[in-house]
Amino acid sequence: MMTKQDFLDCHTRIKPFVHNTAIFTSRLIDREVNSSIFFKCENFQRAGAYKMRGATNAILQLSEEQKKCGVVTHSSGNFAQALSLAAQSVGVTAYIVMPNTAPEVKKVGVREYGGKIYECEATVEARQAMADDIALKTGATFVHPSNDNNVILGQGTAAMELLHEHPDLDIIFCPVGGGGLIAGSALAAKYFGNNCKVYGAEPFEADDAYRSLQSGKIESNETTNTIADGLKTVLGDKNFPIIKSLVSGIVRVTEDEIVAAMKLVWERMKIIIEPSSAVTVAAVLKQSKLQPEVFQNKKIGVIISGGNVDLSKLPF
Amino acid sequence: MMTKQDFLDCHTRIKPFVHNTAIFTSRLIDREVNSSIFFKCENFQRAGAYKMRGATNAILQLSEEQKKCGVVTHSSGNFAQALSLAAQSVGVTAYIVMPNTAPEVKKVGVREYGGKIYECEATVEARQAMADDIALKTGATFVHPSNDNNVILGQGTAAMELLHEHPDLDIIFCPVGGGGLIAGSALAAKYFGNNCKVYGAEPFEADDAYRSLQSGKIESNETTNTIADGLKTVLGDKNFPIIKSLVSGIVRVTEDEIVAAMKLVWERMKIIIEPSSAVTVAAVLKQSKLQPEVFQNKKIGVIISGGNVDLSKLPF
Repeated sequence: MMTKQDFLDCHTRIKPFVHNTAIFTSRLIDREVNSSIFFKCENFQRAGAYKMRGATNAILQLSEEQKKCGVVTHSSGNFAQALSLAAQSVGVTAYIVMPNTAPEVKKVGVREYGGKIYECEATVEARQAMADDIALKTGATFVHPSNDNNVILGQGTAAMELLHEHPDLDIIFCPVGGGGLIAGSALAAKYFGNNCKVYGAEPFEADDAYRSLQSGKIESNETTNTIADGLKTVLGDKNFPIIKSLVSGIVRVTEDEIVAAMKLVWERMKIIIEPSSAVTVAAVLKQSKLQPEVFQNKKIGVIISGGNVDLSKLPF
Repeated sequence: MMTKQDFLDCHTRIKPFVHNTAIFTSRLIDREVNSSIFFKCENFQRAGAYKMRGATNAILQLSEEQKKCGVVTHSSGNFAQALSLAAQSVGVTAYIVMPNTAPEVKKVGVREYGGKIYECEATVEARQAMADDIALKTGATFVHPSNDNNVILGQGTAAMELLHEHPDLDIIFCPVGGGGLIAGSALAAKYFGNNCKVYGAEPFEADDAYRSLQSGKIESNETTNTIADGLKTVLGDKNFPIIKSLVSGIVRVTEDEIVAAMKLVWERMKIIIEPSSAVTVAAVLKQSKLQPEVFQNKKIGVIISGGNVDLSKLPF
């Protein structure tokens, strides 16, 4: 199990390479939910998402030998950019397997940061097969976007920084895709919070984590017909036990609720958040109405996970 | 002539009612222009634009008698919201004359802040006639959105705050619509800067200020076929003399350049800026190439004037 000291070490290690992002508030949204919300703006993170934290931590833990052969990953987009940029910062080659459905803006980002893209079918199996193949041929170290302890630690530093500024948060909300962010956040809340509960947010259209918590084992998605392209992946054997033991619940939202929340934040907070982040905002808006006794009159941290949006494909 | 002390008094007066907005930077844009840019983010200002500063200063200068009869203005949008919100804060009625072409999102904003909307034809003459009529009937005090010394002072506090954080700025860039922001910024640069030059930015499609500086008298626009809906108005007799004596130049940009700059800022900085603000960013990007000796290797402040955008009418 990762310790409090592991988090402190990780934060010190990655600090020179990542931003301690701003925390925004919105009077309008506070009024809507009758709570005080603190938005940790990882959309302002380098490469546009919190993924830079875990990617950087993973790269910095490689041996000199490993660095020579590069790293390989598969990712729907944000981790791809993050690993490319983190690798570029230390002169390491990054091989990136991306589904052919990934938003163009994310592919452009990967190329800009020097990552080498390999496109594959948009299935979990196809991604892994191609990544394994590249690892075999090049000797590159495989870095999983979410099911890797170094990555989980890195992702948790966003919640850690949020709790450093606001140690009295009652709740932290974050989106659930592959589970790295929520596992890291839950551990950070345990070590740095004061009875701070962690909730996840998911689209109904990709609610594998919700169902996994219900059944007690990792469930997959039969389809993933959601605008939240970052949340289509499933949990892993390293992060699921953490999620199972530390996460208080998962709130599911509809596609309409996601788009409405995204519009609200864009129009009123004037910041670009991607659909996966809007899932979290939608969950807070919804649950404050459904369970006022749990979610009203609280101090709630919300991890705005990223801001990488393809402007040519907006839902408005 | 407004004095340095007038600015200090104004800033103290409005401080409880406005945000000291964040200053953002972007490594990517710095590399593009080969200068260090400091973006004063008035898109995060209350009511979504710097106009809140001047509106608040004007309202706070009213006598108790005047406050009872309310205020009236005409505005293409942002000043309308700002005056409504500033008036609401002190229990004053705001009558707002808006052109029937104003973006729906701005009308919604005015209504939310309690302003009473009167729609008119989208000409300078029609706006003024209707505002005069309302003033006559209600006894409301007319507050001009840009040609009013209290408004000019208030708008100048954005540049004042920027120079307080970065006293060594070489240049400040801001958009030119009615001239209140650039007149206030030019005075602020004179009093709080260290040889800081001020440049304006305008669309070619509404380049009245550029032509006014050329001819030495206030010129109007025959047409205003620009996406920058906030910049269609013309200079006034109070701000033009200030602009003429203190502004170093006006850079004009095309509609394509405006949209490209807006896209760049949305995609890379993850903040929502309105077309009028993109005009300024486009001007810096362009002029750094055309006059590198003037605009490269400099510290440049850019006033991001606002973030009120109608998401149903995006140019992407």
